[in-house]
Amino acid sequence: MQIEVVPNVNEARSDNFINKTVIVIDVLRATSSIVTALECGSDGIIPVETVNEAKNFESKNDLLSGERYCKKISGFDLGNSPLEFLNHEIQGKRIIMTTSNGTRAIQKSHKAAHVIAGTILNASNCARKAFNLKRDIVLLCAGTQDQFSLEDGLCAGMMIHELKQLQEEIHLSDFSMTMYLSFLQSKNELQRTILQCSNGKKLCKMGFEEDVIFCTMQNEYSVVPILRDNIMVAM
Amino acid sequence: MQIEVVPNVNEARSDNFINKTVIVIDVLRATSSIVTALECGSDGIIPVETVNEAKNFESKNDLLSGERYCKKISGFDLGNSPLEFLNHEIQGKRIIMTTSNGTRAIQKSHKAAHVIAGTILNASNCARKAFNLKRDIVLLCAGTQDQFSLEDGLCAGMMIHELKQLQEEIHLSDFSMTMYLSFLQSKNELQRTILQCSNGKKLCKMGFEEDVIFCTMQNEYSVVPILRDNIMVAM
Repeated sequence: MQIEVVPNVNEARSDNFINKTVIVIDVLRATSSIVTALECGSDGIIPVETVNEAKNFESKNDLLSGERYCKKISGFDLGNSPLEFLNHEIQGKRIIMTTSNGTRAIQKSHKAAHVIAGTILNASNCARKAFNLKRDIVLLCAGTQDQFSLEDGLCAGMMIHELKQLQEEIHLSDFSMTMYLSFLQSKNELQRTILQCSNGKKLCKMGFEEDVIFCTMQNEYSVVPILRDNIMVAM
Repeated sequence: MQIEVVPNVNEARSDNFINKTVIVIDVLRATSSIVTALECGSDGIIPVETVNEAKNFESKNDLLSGERYCKKISGFDLGNSPLEFLNHEIQGKRIIMTTSNGTRAIQKSHKAAHVIAGTILNASNCARKAFNLKRDIVLLCAGTQDQFSLEDGLCAGMMIHELKQLQEEIHLSDFSMTMYLSFLQSKNELQRTILQCSNGKKLCKMGFEEDVIFCTMQNEYSVVPILRDNIMVAM
């Protein structure tokens, strides 16, 4: 089994995803919010690219969610904070979501055999379920404005760690090996490391420190979102 | 002091290097050969892009060196193996060198305030001398055919480790932090890790295992090559 890590959404080449399982990773915060939404009983999350697309998609009983520059979009029900999802009545509701990087990464994966959403909250189960799909795996780090983000890379490394426990003989690219080594080095202080990286510091400055702390809880949730007919549902 | 790591030569943007010190890293094998050549008494190394350029540059007493697809260029005196440089009479001679990735990275750095060559063999001294130049530092990993190479990333991490010992308060980008964490994780088995990465395996298969072992000796040499008027000389 081949494992590849793509450092940011800008480097994603959709033709490279054919016949593979893509795990989209946007720890801060899109895939953490998607996992939390499903864990809290949402019917599913529809990732869309633009604010207008989100509004056009919306039907009765749906919730609109999303951010631009880390802030909730005006008129939307929810931003991109997983803690909002925890505290909002979302049981049985569909969520239409648009974010700067995470939902774009999901859309860029459309040629893959399977698209699933991973984050630190569900990393172990996510890796296990991806492994059971028996295809080569691409860990697509969303990154931030076409730059690599440490928290996504460490989450990719965490999943590689899980995959290696399932099968010792997985083949890692050089970049994947780097993510794995970085995770091993920081696994006992993952939260502290992420609080100090670029997005961690930015979100803390904007008052979202609790989000960062929440998003760095390892394997707190078991749900694994998978894309079926353009909606992310529990696998 | 800002520290940035560029993952491969294709991602190098020369305008980003203005007023900075660029350390070009091509562990397997261009910068290891350059360091070895100067340590063995060469007058200097002129990096050029093409085979024809190398031949046009050559004057009496010069040596031609270089590789394509890891193999010595036909008619050249030397390939790109640092062990060849150790065993050849190069004292007092200039070397005209062209390689697939390393010399290209040096040429792409021409807008920097200073261009120096780093590798595992001279990492400690290289970091120290770059630090003393008192400018922001770019660690430019040459990579391989526009892909990230683990050995260059680990060497970048090793230099960051040195820089942090000189000044705790250096600012690392997310990607730089990843290189630093990866180095910390593998520093006690750097040779084994590099023997198992993509270029390490490829060179071993081609009969260059001794080169890989040589190039992964930590801080064996003290010389730091710097580019002055298009020739790399001892700093």
